[in-house]
Amino acid sequence: MTCHMMTRAERAQLAMMLEVCAYPKPGNVDRCHDYERTWLEHFLASTIYARPALEEAERGEGRIGEIIKHAVAATCYHDGGNTHFGAFILLIPLVYGGDIAGAKTAIGKTDVSDAVAFYKAFGMTHVRMHESDELDVHDPRSLQILRDREMTLLDVMNHSAPNDMVAREWVTGFPLTRRGADLIVSLGPGRQAIVKAFLTLLATELDTFIIKEHGLVAAQRTVLSAREVLDGKVPIEVFDAECIENGINPGSIADIIIAAIYIALGEGWKWDF
Amino acid sequence: MTCHMMTRAERAQLAMMLEVCAYPKPGNVDRCHDYERTWLEHFLASTIYARPALEEAERGEGRIGEIIKHAVAATCYHDGGNTHFGAFILLIPLVYGGDIAGAKTAIGKTDVSDAVAFYKAFGMTHVRMHESDELDVHDPRSLQILRDREMTLLDVMNHSAPNDMVAREWVTGFPLTRRGADLIVSLGPGRQAIVKAFLTLLATELDTFIIKEHGLVAAQRTVLSAREVLDGKVPIEVFDAECIENGINPGSIADIIIAAIYIALGEGWKWDF
Repeated sequence: MTCHMMTRAERAQLAMMLEVCAYPKPGNVDRCHDYERTWLEHFLASTIYARPALEEAERGEGRIGEIIKHAVAATCYHDGGNTHFGAFILLIPLVYGGDIAGAKTAIGKTDVSDAVAFYKAFGMTHVRMHESDELDVHDPRSLQILRDREMTLLDVMNHSAPNDMVAREWVTGFPLTRRGADLIVSLGPGRQAIVKAFLTLLATELDTFIIKEHGLVAAQRTVLSAREVLDGKVPIEVFDAECIENGINPGSIADIIIAAIYIALGEGWKWDF
Repeated sequence: MTCHMMTRAERAQLAMMLEVCAYPKPGNVDRCHDYERTWLEHFLASTIYARPALEEAERGEGRIGEIIKHAVAATCYHDGGNTHFGAFILLIPLVYGGDIAGAKTAIGKTDVSDAVAFYKAFGMTHVRMHESDELDVHDPRSLQILRDREMTLLDVMNHSAPNDMVAREWVTGFPLTRRGADLIVSLGPGRQAIVKAFLTLLATELDTFIIKEHGLVAAQRTVLSAREVLDGKVPIEVFDAECIENGINPGSIADIIIAAIYIALGEGWKWDF
C-alpha cells in the first residue's frame, strides 16, 4: 500500500536514517554498534531535527550557506560532535536543486555570504580541519580573509578539496555520490544494497576523514581491508571489529553514501523490499 | 552544547525514535531485532513521515480525529501494517493539548466528525479489532451507526476501552502514560530508563494487543515472565528470545511507553546522559 508521496526533505531524512541503520557497516555507528559518546540515537535525533532546514532547502528560497548553518545549529545538541555535518554539505544543495544537476547549478550561485555562513556553521561543530589550514574556522581572522578575497562557498570547497572528499564532491560535480547511487540502484531493491555500496566505495576511495584522524597509511590499509572483504577473503564482521578496535571511522564515505541513497531513492530505488 | 529548543512535534518524534531503538525490549522490534516484514527502519520511517500531522496537532487547529487520520495516511506506506497507530492515538491529543491535562481537555471536545475520521483512519491500517465488535471498521455500516448514535471519538474509545488499553488511556485520563513517565523520570537520565519502565509496565499490566493476538493466558504469562526478569530470576535476553519464539509482541505497552517518553522529555528527562 502506498498512500504517501515523499517530499525531498523526507527523502533526505530517509537517506540519513537508512545509512545509520545499515548493518554491518565497518567502523561506523550502526544499529548494533555505538561509539562511547555518539550513539545510533544521536544520528537519528539529528535526522529528526534537520527537517526544518531540509524543508527550507526544498523551498529553494534563501541561501545555501545559511541553510547549512541552520541544519548544523538544529543538530548540534550533544557533546558527541555534529553527526551529520558532511552529510548536510551534500544534502542541502541536492535537496535545494532536487538532483545532482540542480545542485551543481545551486552551488555555482554561492557567494561570499554563503562562505561566511558556512564558516559560522563549521565553528559550531567539533569537526577538525586540516592542520595546516590558513582558513581555520576557530580563528576569527578567517572570516575577514573570506571577505577580503570575496571567496564564494564553492571557492571554500575548492580550497578544502585536496584534503576533504566531501568538499571535492562540490568541486567535481558529485562523482562519488553518482557512483554510490548507481551502485545502490544496480544492486537492486532492499536495504542490503547500502552496505554493499558502502563497502565498494570503501574499497576504492581513501576516506579523508580517516586520513585526518589517523593519517594516510591507515586510510590506505582500510581500502585494502575493504577489498579483502569484497573478495570474500575476510568476513565483514572481522573487518568491522578491526575498525572499531583501531578507532577507524570512515565518516566521509558514510556522508557520501547518505547523498547516494538520496539520489537512488529519487530514481525509484526501494529500500523495503 | 544546547542550541536547539525542541518543538512538541519533535519531542513526539524523539519519543517514537527512542522507544523503537531501546534495547533489549522483549518481543518488540528494537535495534537488534526485526520482524520478518516489519523492521526497525519501518518504525523510523514512520517517525519521519508523521511530522506534518504532529505539527498540525501542535498548532492546535483542526480536529483530532482528522489529524490522527493524516498521521495514519502518511505512515501506511508498507505492507507490514501501521507501525504507530496506537502511538498516534495517544500522541496526537498529547501534542495537541501539550500535556496530559491539555489532552484531556482536547479529547473532551471530540464529536462525531472525529469518530468518523478515526474510523476511516482505522480502515487504512491492518490493525485487527476485537472479534465480537459491532463497530467493525471494515463494515461500512459502522460509519452509519456512529452517525446515528452521534458518537464522539471519546465515546468510541469508551466502547473500545474494555479490550484496548490504548483506548482506556483516553477514557481514564492517561494513567499508564503518567505512570510510565514517572518511572522514566524517577529512573534518572539515560536511555536505559526506557527499557526498565517498559519492563515494569509489562510486569503489572495485561497487554491488550497480546490478548487480541494470543489470548488472555498468553498475556498473563507475559506479565509473570516480566516480573521474573525484574526480580532478577530470568535474564532479559532469555525472556526476549521466548517472546520472539512465540510471536508475543507487547505492542500496546510499547505505544504507552512512547506517550510516556513524550511526557518525560517535556518534564526535563534527558535521554543522552
